[in-house]
Amino acid sequence: MRWLRFSRQGRIAYGMLDGERVIEVNGTPWGEHERTGSVHDLADITFEVPVIPNTLYCAGSNYTKHILAVAAQTGKPPNLPTSPHIGYRANNGLVAHNAAVIIPADATPQVHYEGELVVVIGKRARNLTRDEAMSCVFGYTIGNDVSERSWQKSDRTMWRAKNADTFNPMGPWIETDADVAKMETIVRVNGHVHTHFKTDEMLFDIPTFISDISTYMTLQPGDVIWMGTDGHSPDLVDGDEVAIEITGIGTLVNRFEKQKA
Amino acid sequence: MRWLRFSRQGRIAYGMLDGERVIEVNGTPWGEHERTGSVHDLADITFEVPVIPNTLYCAGSNYTKHILAVAAQTGKPPNLPTSPHIGYRANNGLVAHNAAVIIPADATPQVHYEGELVVVIGKRARNLTRDEAMSCVFGYTIGNDVSERSWQKSDRTMWRAKNADTFNPMGPWIETDADVAKMETIVRVNGHVHTHFKTDEMLFDIPTFISDISTYMTLQPGDVIWMGTDGHSPDLVDGDEVAIEITGIGTLVNRFEKQKA
Repeated sequence: MRWLRFSRQGRIAYGMLDGERVIEVNGTPWGEHERTGSVHDLADITFEVPVIPNTLYCAGSNYTKHILAVAAQTGKPPNLPTSPHIGYRANNGLVAHNAAVIIPADATPQVHYEGELVVVIGKRARNLTRDEAMSCVFGYTIGNDVSERSWQKSDRTMWRAKNADTFNPMGPWIETDADVAKMETIVRVNGHVHTHFKTDEMLFDIPTFISDISTYMTLQPGDVIWMGTDGHSPDLVDGDEVAIEITGIGTLVNRFEKQKA
Repeated sequence: MRWLRFSRQGRIAYGMLDGERVIEVNGTPWGEHERTGSVHDLADITFEVPVIPNTLYCAGSNYTKHILAVAAQTGKPPNLPTSPHIGYRANNGLVAHNAAVIIPADATPQVHYEGELVVVIGKRARNLTRDEAMSCVFGYTIGNDVSERSWQKSDRTMWRAKNADTFNPMGPWIETDADVAKMETIVRVNGHVHTHFKTDEMLFDIPTFISDISTYMTLQPGDVIWMGTDGHSPDLVDGDEVAIEITGIGTLVNRFEKQKA
């Protein structure tokens, strides 16, 4: 089942995707909901971010090749983690499928994509073991953790390097029936494949992250965990279209535009 | 004017404080709202976190004495910033005035308070100059940025050091008529003053933070900015009561309890 959050004529709602149609519902996918009776053509709706999380968790340094590539880029020695690196992103950076990513006027040319599997939490959860961890997962979507590498190197936090407005596209929808072991992540820039990796070749897997997070934090329905990325992006410029496909989920497409100075 | 968010008989609402009474409203303080006709005794309500922000911004290292104290504690050289350090906290850590702060079972004894002024944003804002910055401020509340110093030192991010469940008390209410230049921050542990500083002796002031943030991010109504802290906390233990007073706003009180292993 694919759940999407959409707007139409100024209203935002959830809907279930049925081919090229969207069956509108009241409520949330993980809570009580019922069909409104309205059905829309997919071509007539605007995609919205599939969920505004209470907390947006993310994995840092979770794929080997990406860690080596970033080390080469920043000139720092590669730092392979011995435990999951858990971080956050800010909700202000979220934008939907088809929305523009605005490259800030003073950004350097080192603006990169990071194609990531996003885990969507469906149940309140605390103190889950690795074996119990997947019981709180509702489904999966796709994230692009856009990064300005010079700010990532120079700033003490990733506040603007990874959280500037529009730097966190997420979507297009939430897929509830997906098998992570079979997924491949394929990132195309202007139609050409630039990155291709097996999505589940993570250093630390989803149950490990959920178990570790839930040792100290209560996961809430609608929280999301971005699972990190592999590979390396070219420098992105005004007009580039980045399409992140994760097989079994779908494709998140965003066009990059340089902010007018 | 003091705005509080409260629950009563399972419902959450905003209210205006009038002496010992709470005048309930529909809506939000910074948006459309109207009185419901219900009035409650302050003694009959439960305080809720005054706002669940879209993004919870925070200042790092914004008072000189605190930077020196943390440097002494962690064994790292003091690092006086030359520009505002902007970070985030996760909403999962928020709890209200009078709620318990739970010290995780595996925390070291180095669990500390940080008494902080919190700026509450009332208007959508982007690209504000320092001169324009205060136009988006709705009011002020108080935060306790509870910190486990051994995790702050050992972990790559502050995910559990400063974001564990209950580690971010905020309240008791939002004060709209306050003069930051006259404020003093006084932190009492079990009734004894442990920290006392002039709230506005920040390295970088509120207009500077708002202007810097809004260069890259859109501030939203209900977003908050925690302005950092001065001084140094003793190690807190099971049963300690921490009361953070900021003159002109009020007092945020929370009792610390050790989690059962």
